[in-house]
Amino acid sequence: MNLILLFPEDFTDPSHVRIAGRRFEHVLKVHGAQTGDELTVGVINDRIGTGKITHFDATVLEMKVSLDRQPPPPLPVNLILALPRPKVLKRVLRSVSSLGVKRIVFVNAYRVEKSYWSSPALAPEGIRENLVLGLEQARDTVLPEVSLKSLFKPFVEDELPSLLQGTLALAADPTAPEPCPRSTSCPLTLVIGPEGGFIPYEIGKLAAAGCTPVNCGERILSVETAVAALLSRLF
Amino acid sequence: MNLILLFPEDFTDPSHVRIAGRRFEHVLKVHGAQTGDELTVGVINDRIGTGKITHFDATVLEMKVSLDRQPPPPLPVNLILALPRPKVLKRVLRSVSSLGVKRIVFVNAYRVEKSYWSSPALAPEGIRENLVLGLEQARDTVLPEVSLKSLFKPFVEDELPSLLQGTLALAADPTAPEPCPRSTSCPLTLVIGPEGGFIPYEIGKLAAAGCTPVNCGERILSVETAVAALLSRLF
Repeated sequence: MNLILLFPEDFTDPSHVRIAGRRFEHVLKVHGAQTGDELTVGVINDRIGTGKITHFDATVLEMKVSLDRQPPPPLPVNLILALPRPKVLKRVLRSVSSLGVKRIVFVNAYRVEKSYWSSPALAPEGIRENLVLGLEQARDTVLPEVSLKSLFKPFVEDELPSLLQGTLALAADPTAPEPCPRSTSCPLTLVIGPEGGFIPYEIGKLAAAGCTPVNCGERILSVETAVAALLSRLF
Repeated sequence: MNLILLFPEDFTDPSHVRIAGRRFEHVLKVHGAQTGDELTVGVINDRIGTGKITHFDATVLEMKVSLDRQPPPPLPVNLILALPRPKVLKRVLRSVSSLGVKRIVFVNAYRVEKSYWSSPALAPEGIRENLVLGLEQARDTVLPEVSLKSLFKPFVEDELPSLLQGTLALAADPTAPEPCPRSTSCPLTLVIGPEGGFIPYEIGKLAAAGCTPVNCGERILSVETAVAALLSRLF
């Protein structure tokens, strides 16, 4: 936690907050903070600044907050991922949230196991929890927007084309002849398949919708590693 | 598992193998393979090719193996990481092994908890298991070499300078003024600190040994995400 993320309900007046629970524990146990210490804080979907600890007891911490700067710029990317298994999903949410992705779509694919769609990790509070952990890691405040598309074909045919507009649209595909570009400076849509990859039918549908299949070298990476590696290569 | 990694003891003659256990289970349950199917195989520290299933029963699988190509090229990098907590260590080993890193040094740092050094995940078989999983993921065969340096100062003063020779040496440091370069084509040494970062004394020692501190943007990434993002940015 490199930033304490604050929510409207934490404020007791416009410049003071009172926090308890996970964030309280972290500040005292991991940071070993004391009264008078200054910590990096940020308000959800708003600015970043400093929180000076004015008081704490066994369960609650109070800070005087001053906000003076904007959160880091977002990555201009729509990230479309075949739904990974729940354990990986949690880590991917934290990772992409920390990397600055603000629009994430999880989509079905032939090689996505049906049971993944009924995982508790997909509940709104589960998704939000991991996104918040990613923001706290990266000192960001802007919560990404996550959508779930449990039907591949209607999503790709009816919704994907408008999402692609004004972006360079790429689908990671180890069999594609074209290599993935580097250091693009334009808005992107990036589609990444499941462990085991998209099937040719799915790559065909993505290409028909306007995504260029690109390969990322000989090595096949796990979804978690691929997401960080591709975003870092592209931006 | 995108490649079945074979070991000398699997061979019943120069072109036939018999495998059981984890790899056997994976081939039958995940791939749903049948007699006659051809799978990608590779021999540890050797070539890659095809294994044709000639026979299987309830516990054992036999394949005729032909090896016809080299594994993917390694990344020319010495990766030096402050020892992460055991759960993260396992994932980092898999990830860096899949990315093609062949020399990894885990080093102590002020913000590394002492208990991490007595984790069972650091036993040679624990390290090897996760490296093998990374090779199987990326279709590689060349086992990385891992060293453990539980004393920071003697390592940095006495061993690091010779490791750096002939490489561009970089230490990731969020406070550094110089940005991390992109798409270098030279051999590298990359040093990444613990969660919470190196302390200024440690950055000073690394710089004195010849590492240039570089920042990787405003966002502070977790070790797992940072490793994949930095290697992908640098190569």
